[in-house]
Parts: sequence; C-alpha cells; structure tokens
Amino acid sequence: MQHDFLKNYKQKTKKSSRLYSRAVKVFPGGVNHNIRHFEPYPFFTSAAKGRHLIDVDGNKYTDYWMGHWALILGHSPRLVANSISEQAKNGILYGTVNGVSIDLAETIQKLMPKAETMRFSSTGSEATMYAIRLARARTGKRIVAKAIGGWHGFNTTLMQTVNYPFEQDEGLGLVQDEGQFVESIPFNNLDASLKVLETVKDDLACIIIEPLLGGAGCIPPIEGYLHGLQEFAKKNGSLFILDEIVTGFRVSLHGAASIYRLEPDLFTLGKIAGGGMPIGVLCGDKDIMSLADPTARADKETRCAIGGGTFSANPLTMIAGLKTLDFLKRNKHQVYSKIDRLGAMARKGLAKLFADSRIVCQVTGVGSLFLTHFDMTTVLDASDVAKSDIELLKRYHLALMGNHGIFFLPTKMAAISFAHEEGDVKKLLHATENIIANSQLFK
Amino acid sequence: MQHDFLKNYKQKTKKSSRLYSRAVKVFPGGVNHNIRHFEPYPFFTSAAKGRHLIDVDGNKYTDYWMGHWALILGHSPRLVANSISEQAKNGILYGTVNGVSIDLAETIQKLMPKAETMRFSSTGSEATMYAIRLARARTGKRIVAKAIGGWHGFNTTLMQTVNYPFEQDEGLGLVQDEGQFVESIPFNNLDASLKVLETVKDDLACIIIEPLLGGAGCIPPIEGYLHGLQEFAKKNGSLFILDEIVTGFRVSLHGAASIYRLEPDLFTLGKIAGGGMPIGVLCGDKDIMSLADPTARADKETRCAIGGGTFSANPLTMIAGLKTLDFLKRNKHQVYSKIDRLGAMARKGLAKLFADSRIVCQVTGVGSLFLTHFDMTTVLDASDVAKSDIELLKRYHLALMGNHGIFFLPTKMAAISFAHEEGDVKKLLHATENIIANSQLFK
Repeated sequence: MQHDFLKNYKQKTKKSSRLYSRAVKVFPGGVNHNIRHFEPYPFFTSAAKGRHLIDVDGNKYTDYWMGHWALILGHSPRLVANSISEQAKNGILYGTVNGVSIDLAETIQKLMPKAETMRFSSTGSEATMYAIRLARARTGKRIVAKAIGGWHGFNTTLMQTVNYPFEQDEGLGLVQDEGQFVESIPFNNLDASLKVLETVKDDLACIIIEPLLGGAGCIPPIEGYLHGLQEFAKKNGSLFILDEIVTGFRVSLHGAASIYRLEPDLFTLGKIAGGGMPIGVLCGDKDIMSLADPTARADKETRCAIGGGTFSANPLTMIAGLKTLDFLKRNKHQVYSKIDRLGAMARKGLAKLFADSRIVCQVTGVGSLFLTHFDMTTVLDASDVAKSDIELLKRYHLALMGNHGIFFLPTKMAAISFAHEEGDVKKLLHATENIIANSQLFK
Repeated sequence: MQHDFLKNYKQKTKKSSRLYSRAVKVFPGGVNHNIRHFEPYPFFTSAAKGRHLIDVDGNKYTDYWMGHWALILGHSPRLVANSISEQAKNGILYGTVNGVSIDLAETIQKLMPKAETMRFSSTGSEATMYAIRLARARTGKRIVAKAIGGWHGFNTTLMQTVNYPFEQDEGLGLVQDEGQFVESIPFNNLDASLKVLETVKDDLACIIIEPLLGGAGCIPPIEGYLHGLQEFAKKNGSLFILDEIVTGFRVSLHGAASIYRLEPDLFTLGKIAGGGMPIGVLCGDKDIMSLADPTARADKETRCAIGGGTFSANPLTMIAGLKTLDFLKRNKHQVYSKIDRLGAMARKGLAKLFADSRIVCQVTGVGSLFLTHFDMTTVLDASDVAKSDIELLKRYHLALMGNHGIFFLPTKMAAISFAHEEGDVKKLLHATENIIANSQLFK
C-alpha cells in the first residue's frame, strides 16, 4: 500500500524526480553522501535561507537537518554570506598563511581554553584521523578505543562498529589487519567499558568519544560515564579525546566539555566552527600538539605528520567561522536560551503527543538536538536505537516532508537553529498530531 | 652570514613578523600545513588577485605557487568569485542533494569519459583514501602499490615513502601493522617496479600513481613507465588508479590520462575541479564505483562505505568548479596554449641562464608546471630530487621573494596560471639572471 504522503511527495517533486534520474547516471545511487539518499528519491535543493530549504519544484520546507547540524544561525545568515561574498573577490584560496586564521584560532582559544593550540583541516574525518595519530605518537601505544555506534567520519581506522550489526565489518575494502588496533566499548555502560579497556590498557593510546552519540541517534551520556572514561585514560597514561564536531558551539558556546566539566587532552571541532564552510579542527594540550610542529621537529622521525591539506585554513572558511563565532559570542544568551528552549519544547511536546496516543517512544536529546525513537522506552546506546522501530521513524519523517513541508533527514537527529521560531515547533507538533490522527502510520 | 635577500625580506615584512609571533601561540609552528612554513617566517597574505599575492605589509608578489597549483585561472577570477558571492546568499551548505553537483559531474564526464560515475568528497586526501578502499573492495585483495615519493595526501594508509629517507617511517603515530599492506615502487624504473609488484601480485589490490610526481619534485614519467604499470595491473586483475589531483585539467583539459593515453580503472581529481574551493573527486569505471551505491547495496556487508562527508558537493564548491571548467572548455585553446607556452619559456629560459653560468641543474616539468633541481643533471625519481642541492633551491626561491617580489613556495614545484603574462616570465628570468650575477648564492 502506498501511503498518501508518498503520493503527495511524488506529486510535488516532479522536477526533483527528473534530476534524480540524471543524478544516478553520474553518482552511484545519485548521491555524494549515503545518508542524503532516502526513498522514493531525495528532493533537490535550489536555495536555502534562514530555517527554510526550497527545492527545485518551489516547495519550501522547514529544515531540521540544518546542513548536517552545522548551521546554528540558520541557512546563509547575512553576516556570514556577506563576508564570504567580500572575501571571494579578495582571494578564494591563498595557499599561504593568513591573519584571519589567527583571529579564528584565538577566538576558539578564548571560548575553549583547553584548545591551547590547534590545527585546521578541511573536514571532521581528517581532524579525528589526526587526533588518533597524535595520540599514538604521544603515547607510543597503538590501540584506539571508541564507542559502539560512535561516528568519527570516514577515515579508515575509525570505520568500525558504526552501524548495526556492530560486530560486522563496516563494509568491503576495510582490511582487518588495519583495524586490529581499535577496541569498541558500549556507550553509557561504564562497568562494561572499563572491563574492555582493562584488557587493552598496556597498549591503549587513547579513548575517542562523542559526548553525545550523534550519528548513532542523539544519545546523551548518563552521569558519570564520560568522567569514568576520562579518569581511566588519565590514570592509564592514555589520551582522552573528545569528538566535539557536532556538540562544539552547539550544546553550549564552550562545548560539551564545559557542560559536563570534562578535561580532554585533545578534542576535535568542525561544522559550526567553519560557519558552514569545510572545516575540521584538532585542538588540545600544547605539548601534545607540538609533536606536529614542523619547525621544532624538522626531522620526520621525531614529528607526527598531520595535515593540513590544500584547503586548510583557506580564507573563506576562516572568515565564515570567525563571523559565526563572533555572532555567537556577542549574542550568547539569546542564541542558546532560544535554541535550547525550542529544543525542550519539541522534545516535551512530541513526547506528550505520542504518550497521549499511547504510542511507545522516547524522545532523546540535549539543548537544540532531538530525535524520536519508537517502540523503545529507554535509549542508552546505539543498540537500543538499532532495536527501535526505525522503519516507523522513517515513515513519520517522510510524512512530515510529504504532507507538511517539514524536513527531517529521515531517521536522523534534528537540530534547531537561531533562525527557527516558536511557531515552527508548534507547526511541527501540529503536523505530528495530524499524522497520528489521520494517517495509517500509527494504527 | 646573512644573505641580503633575507635582510630585505625581514625589512619589508614587519607586520608579517608580528603576525607570526601570534600564529605560533595558536598553531604548532604557526601554520596549518607544514609546507606553508619557510624560513625566516612566511609572509601573511591579505589579498590575492590574478597572478598576485599581496601581503599584510602591502608587498605584491607574482605568485608561482597558485594555491597549491589549484588556481589555473589565477586568484579570484571574476566569474568564479561572482558565482560564489551569489551562491553564498542563496545557501552555503544545503546538506541535501543539489542540481549544480549534477552539472559539474556531467561536465567532468564529458571532458574525461573514463569518469563513468564519480563521488565528490571535500579533499584529495579523502578521494585517494576512498580509491584504495574501493580497489580493495573490488579485488578482495589488500596490497596497495605506490611510488617512492608519491604523494596522495595525509590519509593513514598512503603516508608511506613520501619523504627522504624513504625507508624511514613518515613520522610518529603511524602503526606499522596498519602500513604493512603498502608496497613502494621506484618511479620511472619499470623493471625494478615490476620486480616489486611481482612479489606481491597475489594480494595486489591496486597501483595508485601520480602521472607526474608533483609533491616529490615535478618529475614527468618516462615513456612506457605508466603503460607498463597499467599493463601489469590489468593482467594481474589489480586496479590501475591514476591520481590526477594535480594534473587533472592542468596538463590538459582532459587530464594526463589523455596525454599519455592511459585507461585507469579509477582516478582521482581535486584542486582545479573545485575552482579553488575544497574538493576531492573519485571517478572511474561504473561497475567498480557501484560498490559504493547505497541504494543497490543496502546491506553494509555488500557495500564499500566511502564518503561523502558533511561538506561534500556543497553548492559553493560545485558552482566554483562548474564555472571554472566551463571557462576552460570555452577557452580551451587559449588557456592551454598560453600556460604551456609560458611554462616552456620558463623551463628553457632558466635552463639556458644556468647553463650559461655553468650552474649544474635540470629544470623539469610539463606544460605549465616546472621546477629547478641544482647539482643534478638527470632527475628521474624522488631520490634524484633528494640528492639535489635543495638548500640552494630554497635560497634561490627566497632570493626571488626577498629581492624581486616573486613567490615560489620554497623548494616546491611552480605553476603558471592563465592570469600570468609573458612579461612575468621575463621578469622571472631577469630576476634569476640578477641573482646569478649579484648574489653570493651561486659563487
């Protein structure tokens, strides 16, 4: 049976359908990132402004995906767009050092004092790859511990236990011997995690962990979990690396480390830090970071070689990041109180609506981030998410898209931006109420 | 003894010197890419237009580095800058699929028919990482062969035999067991290369190679070398991967594959393909590429997981790349005949000047790319470059910078853009003549 929302979606996205036929001829599956594909086919965006995406058929969607959660000020905020416009005329890629990168770095340093020094790369996948390389360089040890379901990008070493079933390889082309130095620990289960860590402690270079499992399904840490890992790492002489690519400048201006009072040796940033432009940042303890210093360590034997890359610290990314962080600093209270309030409103409102209709679910999240998990009352780790009714979640998101002009990337965590208003969340709640009442989805 | 050019350089870059003092407090070594550092300190660029870099002290340099060789039309060509300006107001990072990415992909497909399908990532390091993952997925084999001195970015697997001494690890933090499946072959020595390949042929997933060794020092292939490797790979059921990140759209509109009549199974693009914006592209045979298709291979066991990433196919990169390639297509003859002619003029002119003064050297290169190697008459591989007088090359480049306002990234290959004029090359030759005659460098 075809759901009405699928019919509606197809009806209103005919130009997207035609573009998709062209896309599959040039891109495997028609996409450049697997998660951007969804059934029956993704709509093609032609413009994005504030909280809205506009597709090639002229449909307008309230966007809760917000550029992979990167766009805390909404799409194309004027001050960022203008600074990019001006800079583009003045230089797109200098290929040389520039002053704006110092301004951005000093801003990050002030907001996150544990960023004693840092290095800019162009993607988060690069930043986490360099983080574990530096940890291995510092400790002389080899094993990297990560959470089951933890997502740190596409780099080879960390492509393990990302997707359910977690004990299975993350696909073809990953060499087992290359992955033998990664150990996975169950998120939010400190005893079990410590037991695993204990078995590899002699060769444990680092623990790398997201403070909130993002890609795995918006799972906040339970009290004591992250501290327990940090304590183990410090006692063991291993590095504690916090992957704040999603949470940095998102859950607070000072990151999750500030909220949970953590003191990582190294941490990674991305997304918001570049104002929507390609960026990854590896930050941390200046002694550890100094292993990457090409001036103090001219000899390759004594240095840890990390990028960098052609596009690292390019002036467009630097200015976009700087303008974004400057705005967040100047409007700290307004931004975070607003997006956190709207996030709480969405979580509570959705939970109440589903509870009132006796639909079993849990709405997880922190601050401006949230996600609904159906047929599940407690979601503490990636396995819980995998066991939830993900098919139902997908259809619910498609129904919001097809019938109500509300965009969640199907099954993925939502993010609220400063461009969202209370009316948007009300509309989301209304639409959800309508779907519960009128569609066959929850019957 | 302090050379006059160093004194001059310091004299005219006082603001850069002050910025550098700030930079070292936030970045290890003050840079975000090791090669951007040079003695005594790098100048800080404040604007870049056409063939010029302008630093914070107001000095203007004729630029032969051209954004890591990415800027074939010069810095901030109006049509690219304008398209970025317009797009920035319309969406910086959609986070969803878009039509411009199809336009760019179809353009690449037409120019390089072996790009049957492709996937956009954000950096070249990512593209080569995905290339070898796909090769391993396709063949079920593990070993990756690369050239000694071959540079494919900072990804963990390919960080081997990059810098002299080549038999030494590329620094701390790289785990030997992770690197055991890489074999290195001597560039331009087919017999010796085949001998190495023969020893690993049963487990050989692919050969990945730059058609011209770029980072290692601008070394063109000798006749038959690349074909020999390709033939071995094809016969052996291994993939032949051409890394055209530097050469694609640079040595010809159709890449080095067209010039050397190669038929790689997969190849990588970057740099010029994004018009100066962050990009990597993995292209090739559509059957092989289909291993990454998330729609045909929903199960992770059957799929090769490659990115993508948050910023892949973002609309700013897509439009900048499209405008650049469109311009190259429409002005193919003018662009390539001009930059190739200026490149030849530089190579011949420099070789003659040095020969006239009995300074032993070889000026290598192809088309718009060139580099001088002192104290060396034949440069065929990365070892020859390592044995050349690199210190002299560095000082020659610093003398051009300090005394003549001509910027080569010290010791690195030069690139000429469409924005360069004959007068620039004449100025370079004049300056070189002057340095030979008046400085102590060549005495």
